[in-house]
Amino acid sequence: MTQMVGKQSLQFEHAPHILGHASIVGKKEGEGPLGHLFDVVGEDALFGEKTWEAAESYLQKQAGEMAIGKAGLESWQIRYIFSGDLLAQGVATSFGLVDLNIPLFGLYGACSTIGEALSLGAMTVAADYADYVISMASSHFGSAEKEFRFPLQYAGQRPLSACWTVTGCGAFVLGKDGGKVRITGITTGKIVDYGIKDSLNMGACMAPAACDTIYQNFMDFNRQPSDYDRIFTGDLGNVGKTILLDLLKEKGFDISSQHSDCGIEIYDAERQDTHNGGSGCGCAAVTLSAYIMRQLEKKAWKRVMLVPTGALLSKVSYNEGNTVPGIAQAVVLESC
Amino acid sequence: MTQMVGKQSLQFEHAPHILGHASIVGKKEGEGPLGHLFDVVGEDALFGEKTWEAAESYLQKQAGEMAIGKAGLESWQIRYIFSGDLLAQGVATSFGLVDLNIPLFGLYGACSTIGEALSLGAMTVAADYADYVISMASSHFGSAEKEFRFPLQYAGQRPLSACWTVTGCGAFVLGKDGGKVRITGITTGKIVDYGIKDSLNMGACMAPAACDTIYQNFMDFNRQPSDYDRIFTGDLGNVGKTILLDLLKEKGFDISSQHSDCGIEIYDAERQDTHNGGSGCGCAAVTLSAYIMRQLEKKAWKRVMLVPTGALLSKVSYNEGNTVPGIAQAVVLESC
Repeated sequence: MTQMVGKQSLQFEHAPHILGHASIVGKKEGEGPLGHLFDVVGEDALFGEKTWEAAESYLQKQAGEMAIGKAGLESWQIRYIFSGDLLAQGVATSFGLVDLNIPLFGLYGACSTIGEALSLGAMTVAADYADYVISMASSHFGSAEKEFRFPLQYAGQRPLSACWTVTGCGAFVLGKDGGKVRITGITTGKIVDYGIKDSLNMGACMAPAACDTIYQNFMDFNRQPSDYDRIFTGDLGNVGKTILLDLLKEKGFDISSQHSDCGIEIYDAERQDTHNGGSGCGCAAVTLSAYIMRQLEKKAWKRVMLVPTGALLSKVSYNEGNTVPGIAQAVVLESC
Repeated sequence: MTQMVGKQSLQFEHAPHILGHASIVGKKEGEGPLGHLFDVVGEDALFGEKTWEAAESYLQKQAGEMAIGKAGLESWQIRYIFSGDLLAQGVATSFGLVDLNIPLFGLYGACSTIGEALSLGAMTVAADYADYVISMASSHFGSAEKEFRFPLQYAGQRPLSACWTVTGCGAFVLGKDGGKVRITGITTGKIVDYGIKDSLNMGACMAPAACDTIYQNFMDFNRQPSDYDRIFTGDLGNVGKTILLDLLKEKGFDISSQHSDCGIEIYDAERQDTHNGGSGCGCAAVTLSAYIMRQLEKKAWKRVMLVPTGALLSKVSYNEGNTVPGIAQAVVLESC
C-alpha cells in the first residue's frame, strides 16, 4: 500500500510521533506574546559565546540536548539528525552539533528548514530506517544581519516590510509511538519565483510559495481549509499574509478563519518595533515547540498544517540583481 | 524486517537502481584523464552566463535534464530532487532547478553532498515514497574561489596542499528497477573534528571523517576491504589519502589495494598544476557518473564504496579562527 498521495504529498500509514521537543530563544522573543512558553530564554544575545555564530551553535546544542532529554532518551539512541540554519555553509549546525556525535543530514531550506527537517525525519522513522531521529533548525538575529544585511553597528533604518530574524532554535525528537502529537502527512514544496527582488520584503517573496504548497496539500489530500483547525505559515508576516490570503482566494480557497503566521504570533509588532514580524529558520521551529505543540497536546486543536516558508537568496544573488524565489514545506500535525 | 544494520548504516532490501545519470564539466576537467568520459565539456567557464553563480546554476539545470532524459523520463515524472552546492544559501541549486518544477529537498553537506543526496534519494525510493527521484550536486571553480578564498584576479599563490575546485555537476535518477547499478546500502557520517584549522589543506581536515565512515561501514556490514573492488573517497587528494590510509591501518584495516580518490583521478596533477587534486561537490558527482558508473555498468567492478568527503567551514568560521571539521557519507554501489 503506497503512501504517495497526489502529486507532492505523502500520507504516513504509521504516523511518526513527536516524543520530545524543546525551544530556546533570545531576550526579545522572551519579551514577546509567547515568552512564557519557551523552555529557555537567554538574557545575553551571545549566550556566553564570543561570536554570533558561536551563539547560534550554542542554541542548536542546547535545544537538541533538551529535546532528547524530554523524550527520555540519550543522544546515542538517536540515529540521525536533520538540521540546518541560515548561515553560509550551515556553520551554526556544523559547530553546534559536533558534540552530539550523531550521523547528520545537513539541510538548507532557508526559513522553511524545520518543515524540511520534520518531513525527512518523519519519512525516515515511518520507513523503519530509525527508531529515533531529531529534526531541528535555528537562526540568530545577530548572525543573520551579519550574513545578509548590514553590520548592527551601522544601525540601518528598516522598512516596514522588513522582518526581524528570530534568535532561537527548536528541536523535535521523532519516534514510532508514545507521543501526544503525530506527523500524519507532508507536502513537499517546489521553488516558486514570482520575480520579486526586494530582500527587505520577504513576506511578498515567500507568499506565492506558501500558496502553492497549501493549495497542493488541499488537492493531494482532498481537503478543505475547514479540515484544519489552524494553518500556520512560517514567517510571511503581515505583508505576506495579505498576499497569501488573496492568492488562495483566487484559487477558490478562503483560509482566513484558519490562518496564522508564526512570524506574526512571536512578537508584538507595535510594542516590539518588529515591523512585518519574525523570520528565520528558528521562527517556525520555536513557535511550533512552544505554542502549536501545546495546543495539539492538550487537544485544543486536532489537526494543524504547519507551512514554514523560505526565501531563497544570498547576499551574492541579491547583489547580482537576482530575484528572491520562495519555497514552502508543509507538515500535517495531529493530536493523538 | 528492518533495514538498519549496525550503528550508522542501512541495507536496502529492495535496492534502488540508478536509471540514468549525466555529467557536465568545465574545460580543465575536460582536459584531464577522464575528459573523454564526460557527457558535456564546456569551452567557456561562464557557460554563456554573466556570473560564476549563474554558470553553476546552468550546470545543475543541464545535468538534471540530461540525467532525466537518459533515464527515458520527463521531469514531471520525478517526484523529488535532492540537491546542493557549496555556495552560501545554496543559490546554485535554487536558481538552477527552479525551471524543473520538481519538489525540492535542499541539502548542505559541503563536498560530501552527492553522498548525502544519493543516500536520501535511495531511502526515499526504497520506502516507496517515490517512483523516481533525482540526486545531484555541483561546484564551480570560479564561484567557489569567490565564496571561500580570493578574487581570481588577485592570483594568490596556492600551497601544494590546496585543492582545485571542480567545475561540474553530476546528476543521478533513481528508481525501483531497470538500471545496471543499484545502491545496496549507505553509511551516514558524523561530524568529525580533529582540530585542524588550515582551509588550504582540506584533505587533512576531511581524512579523519572518511576514516570514521569507512571503518563504520566495515563494522556495520561486517565486511573487509577486499569485499569491495574499489573504495573511492571524494576529494582527499594526495595529502588526505596518505592520512586516511594511515588512520585506517591504526584501526586494523589496510585499504591501499582498494582505495582511489575522485580528486586524484580527475586531474593530472603534474601536467594540470592542480596540486593536491580536485575538490568541490561536483568532484565526486562527475567522477561517479563518468568513470565509476561505467566500470560498474560493464561489470569491471562488482561492488564499490563511494565516500564523498566534506569540509565544514565558511569564510566566517575560518576568519573567526574555528577548526575545519569533516563529514563523509558512504554509498555502496553494486552492478546488477
